[in-house]
Amino acid sequence: MKVFIIGLGMIGGSLAKTLRNSNFADEILGFDKATENTAFCLENNLIDRSVSIVEGAKEADIILLATPVDSIMELIPQLLDQLEEQVVIDMGSTKKEISKLAATHPKGCNFVAAHPMAGIENSGPTAALEQLFTDKVAIICNPENNARMPLNLAKLFFKSLKMKLIFMDAEEHDRDLAYLSHLSHILSFSLALTAYNVEDKERNIFNLAGGGFASTVRLAGSSAAMWNPVFLQNKTNMLEALELYISNLNLFREHIKNENKEGLNQLMNKSNAIYKIINQSI
Amino acid sequence: MKVFIIGLGMIGGSLAKTLRNSNFADEILGFDKATENTAFCLENNLIDRSVSIVEGAKEADIILLATPVDSIMELIPQLLDQLEEQVVIDMGSTKKEISKLAATHPKGCNFVAAHPMAGIENSGPTAALEQLFTDKVAIICNPENNARMPLNLAKLFFKSLKMKLIFMDAEEHDRDLAYLSHLSHILSFSLALTAYNVEDKERNIFNLAGGGFASTVRLAGSSAAMWNPVFLQNKTNMLEALELYISNLNLFREHIKNENKEGLNQLMNKSNAIYKIINQSI
Repeated sequence: MKVFIIGLGMIGGSLAKTLRNSNFADEILGFDKATENTAFCLENNLIDRSVSIVEGAKEADIILLATPVDSIMELIPQLLDQLEEQVVIDMGSTKKEISKLAATHPKGCNFVAAHPMAGIENSGPTAALEQLFTDKVAIICNPENNARMPLNLAKLFFKSLKMKLIFMDAEEHDRDLAYLSHLSHILSFSLALTAYNVEDKERNIFNLAGGGFASTVRLAGSSAAMWNPVFLQNKTNMLEALELYISNLNLFREHIKNENKEGLNQLMNKSNAIYKIINQSI
Repeated sequence: MKVFIIGLGMIGGSLAKTLRNSNFADEILGFDKATENTAFCLENNLIDRSVSIVEGAKEADIILLATPVDSIMELIPQLLDQLEEQVVIDMGSTKKEISKLAATHPKGCNFVAAHPMAGIENSGPTAALEQLFTDKVAIICNPENNARMPLNLAKLFFKSLKMKLIFMDAEEHDRDLAYLSHLSHILSFSLALTAYNVEDKERNIFNLAGGGFASTVRLAGSSAAMWNPVFLQNKTNMLEALELYISNLNLFREHIKNENKEGLNQLMNKSNAIYKIINQSI
């Protein structure tokens, strides 16, 4: 089986590393518009050959889209137009627009809208990890849009990454993920921006940051190129989640302002109870 | 040397565990108003004896305050009134009010206002860790208020925990920590409250939460009893930090609403740059 990875960043590089050590792929082709990414993957034997999108899409049995979600939207018509009996699987963090666009194409039944729930804050193929996907959840959205064989190939592909498969509706995916992933990134970005207020080169104040700060600020290292189109494609849900989040912050602010100890306790106790439920799941 | 720990929660229990395996203390006395905490520490050999506050303060050479910061404020006059040639060191996350109160007392030079920068989201002595303090930073505030010997004893105590010592002004401490620790807790509490909006018992939606969510929501498990008085004692700084944070979130919200890709990129690129500075320090 020939696998063609479009987008050789952290996700694409991790896919290549993992495929290299599974017996799913016989040959791994790769494309990235940044030539340094392609060069790194060739030099480090992550891919066997660098090809153009047209060449790779012609040759490969399975085409994996691991680019930012705006590029995925651009690639869908281009790839599906030239598709014969092959499967395209995307790895994007949004699914509604992508799934909708693919469904309008005559070859849409060969396009599997997927989201492997794995990521780190570092970007580029130098940050790629072979164990990135192991035991994580892979979501396939609207599988009813797929023909049987492309869906089965996609299932086997994610199983070869040792991922757990979940099927869900693309609209539900985008709403849930706004709260359970996308929002977290904005919180970390904003925390870094806010903490800069006390930065003081002479005192090196960030030395005072403890483990709590480190974990809440970690995602501030995430790539703008990846997250910008996620926030915009998931605009409605992001605005809803942000509004609710800001209203919760304002509750804390009001209670602190009014020295309302009981109000603060209620918020924190409720949050503790929710955290227990969350902690049992993650 | 006899050490008396008041407050046998996660911090007090971790102090006891660490002291037990260092050669700093010959005997460890403990008090907690929750009898189950005292019982746990006795049963698990974290402390040698359970004593009353009056007894412990009379017997011990060093008294460690590991209670929530509102209790520390209550304990300061009570302990200093009966103090002879002993040292009191507090472990509170706020320092301005505590340091100011101690400085007004005739025995205030024996009170060392400290903050070991170590913590986890779990509470109670069952969550105590022997390695909690190792290689972390311990802050001593306004050491100019201390006599030489109590300060030297406090330094040796923190060194026995294998901590790195930093000295700073109590007001600066509270401002910096509002941004570099206290704010993070409110962000996590609010994230848990917000994410509950998509909780759905039948679909068990929290299964979809990835590593990014897990790290930003972790502090939502933190104890209300500990954090309530921190937020209130550090009110002015917390309000300033929250206001700035909400204004940063609103920038993201506006840019998403207006589909301002360039604006989002600028925010994220700036955040990435700050994260790099932070990441070099933590």
